Amino acid sequence: MSILTVGTVAFDSIETPFGKADRIVGGACTYISWAASYFHKDIRLVAVVGDDFPQFELDAMRSQGINLDGLQIKEGEKSFFWAGKYHENMNGRDTLATELNVLADFDPVLPDSYKDSQYIMLGNLTPSIQMKVIEQLTVKPKLIVLDTMNFWMDIALDDLKAVIKKIDVLTINDEEARQLSGEHSLVKAARVIREMGPKYLVIKKGEHGALLFHGEEIFFAPALPLEQVFDPTGAGDTFAGGFIGYLASTDDLSFENMKRAVVYGSALASCTVEKFGIEKIKSLSIDDINDRIRTFEKLMTVNMESLVK
Amino acid sequence: MSILTVGTVAFDSIETPFGKADRIVGGACTYISWAASYFHKDIRLVAVVGDDFPQFELDAMRSQGINLDGLQIKEGEKSFFWAGKYHENMNGRDTLATELNVLADFDPVLPDSYKDSQYIMLGNLTPSIQMKVIEQLTVKPKLIVLDTMNFWMDIALDDLKAVIKKIDVLTINDEEARQLSGEHSLVKAARVIREMGPKYLVIKKGEHGALLFHGEEIFFAPALPLEQVFDPTGAGDTFAGGFIGYLASTDDLSFENMKRAVVYGSALASCTVEKFGIEKIKSLSIDDINDRIRTFEKLMTVNMESLVK
Repeated sequence: MSILTVGTVAFDSIETPFGKADRIVGGACTYISWAASYFHKDIRLVAVVGDDFPQFELDAMRSQGINLDGLQIKEGEKSFFWAGKYHENMNGRDTLATELNVLADFDPVLPDSYKDSQYIMLGNLTPSIQMKVIEQLTVKPKLIVLDTMNFWMDIALDDLKAVIKKIDVLTINDEEARQLSGEHSLVKAARVIREMGPKYLVIKKGEHGALLFHGEEIFFAPALPLEQVFDPTGAGDTFAGGFIGYLASTDDLSFENMKRAVVYGSALASCTVEKFGIEKIKSLSIDDINDRIRTFEKLMTVNMESLVK
Repeated sequence: MSILTVGTVAFDSIETPFGKADRIVGGACTYISWAASYFHKDIRLVAVVGDDFPQFELDAMRSQGINLDGLQIKEGEKSFFWAGKYHENMNGRDTLATELNVLADFDPVLPDSYKDSQYIMLGNLTPSIQMKVIEQLTVKPKLIVLDTMNFWMDIALDDLKAVIKKIDVLTINDEEARQLSGEHSLVKAARVIREMGPKYLVIKKGEHGALLFHGEEIFFAPALPLEQVFDPTGAGDTFAGGFIGYLASTDDLSFENMKRAVVYGSALASCTVEKFGIEKIKSLSIDDINDRIRTFEKLMTVNMESLVK
């Protein structure tokens, strides 16, 4: 199977109660691609950077099996930059700076070799750009997953709704689900959102886990309680990458396998937040991932053998 | 097995975004006893009410197998009264009135027939009163569970710490765990709190589920995503009642069975919040409970058969 990943490849400056990191590599597509790369080796990246983006980071991605033929490198321009500061309790963050740079006029062009991709992961980005990617596909993909955020609901709701119509799985957080649906109950919100197009909805609740909705079914995967969350940046993107990576590697779109994909996404996200930026997601081993999955199993598993009489 | 339940039996006035209920029956011990009564028939209640408390409510409890020999009825006095209003998103509430009435000088007296109780559920109440109950036990119980809240951490921390030393299981919410421990990470908070005495800690996270900590083990039970939460009042008390009721009925204190007890507690709590006050917890059937448990199983269960290679 092939995975197409789309999104930002960028620099972040991050401040959390535990430290500061200045102009480190980040971006939705970076986290997504690294996370998916542990499951699958045919990953096709679509993104744009300036000529300030470090060559060794691109080399590291290539060695990991990430195809960069769809990466545009703009000479004389700068990569997208975001700076943010997390609140004391890590439950919120303030954006300190957003410099669009190369992203301002990003026109995604799919190399011909990408146009038959089977699993499509549209990372958080302008909805009209996400749509342009879908329009260039020449073969109907097996699955299109889209991640987005409240920002696009505020400024580009019509474009967002248009692209949401075309996808199979939407991943958003709980507040975004409430905003998009106008419903407070997540059960009702899920119903409204799935009527907009996607058959599956993943509601990410950060430290409170993730919900998967499909038909009348609901599955919940917890987040792993951690000793220390150093940096929540990229957790949602990592989740998305692990989710689609696992699905593509198993090529099984049953609800049962979707549930497993949610646990794999959650497991990888729990790794990402333990270090700053992409440090941890770049340096995992298969054993690390399997150990983390075993920890999730212990956290979640109970045998409800006997009912009350 | 026998269960001793201690706490308030009272009146509540409740306002939520979905309606208002004036002077309805509530109180921690009421919810706890009703919830436990579905599992077990030897329930011994210790509480105090005024002569304003409706006889038919007491009769209903007696018919359900709840022993009221330890209920003090104070002639010419009024029952404890609490009035509160929930915020629009149900995530918080304001207390509008608290009238201690009979609770002001409550001196719990255990009937002799209660003193050998094996499972003790100390509902949210003044820590020194919880302690007085423990001191009257003549036979070492199998399990003491204590529920409390931030209010007692603010005004009676030393008394609270003294009683926490004597118990086996503490149930509090996430913010209270952080306050009591001074740690933000719940993993660290759990370690600090268990050093205060209890071998087991349950951290209740409301709509985000509940965590059970013991030794190096952690178990997570989700809350059921609901169409509508009408009234969160009593959810934590109901959880505690279901938890201890299930444990007493199975008389099995293994970690595996504690996990099941957390799911039963969560299942009953998910019922309570669907109606105002005790309306729903008073009218459950065994089939209702077992159906709810099956729903929880579907929500939680995933087979992580194959690991990544």
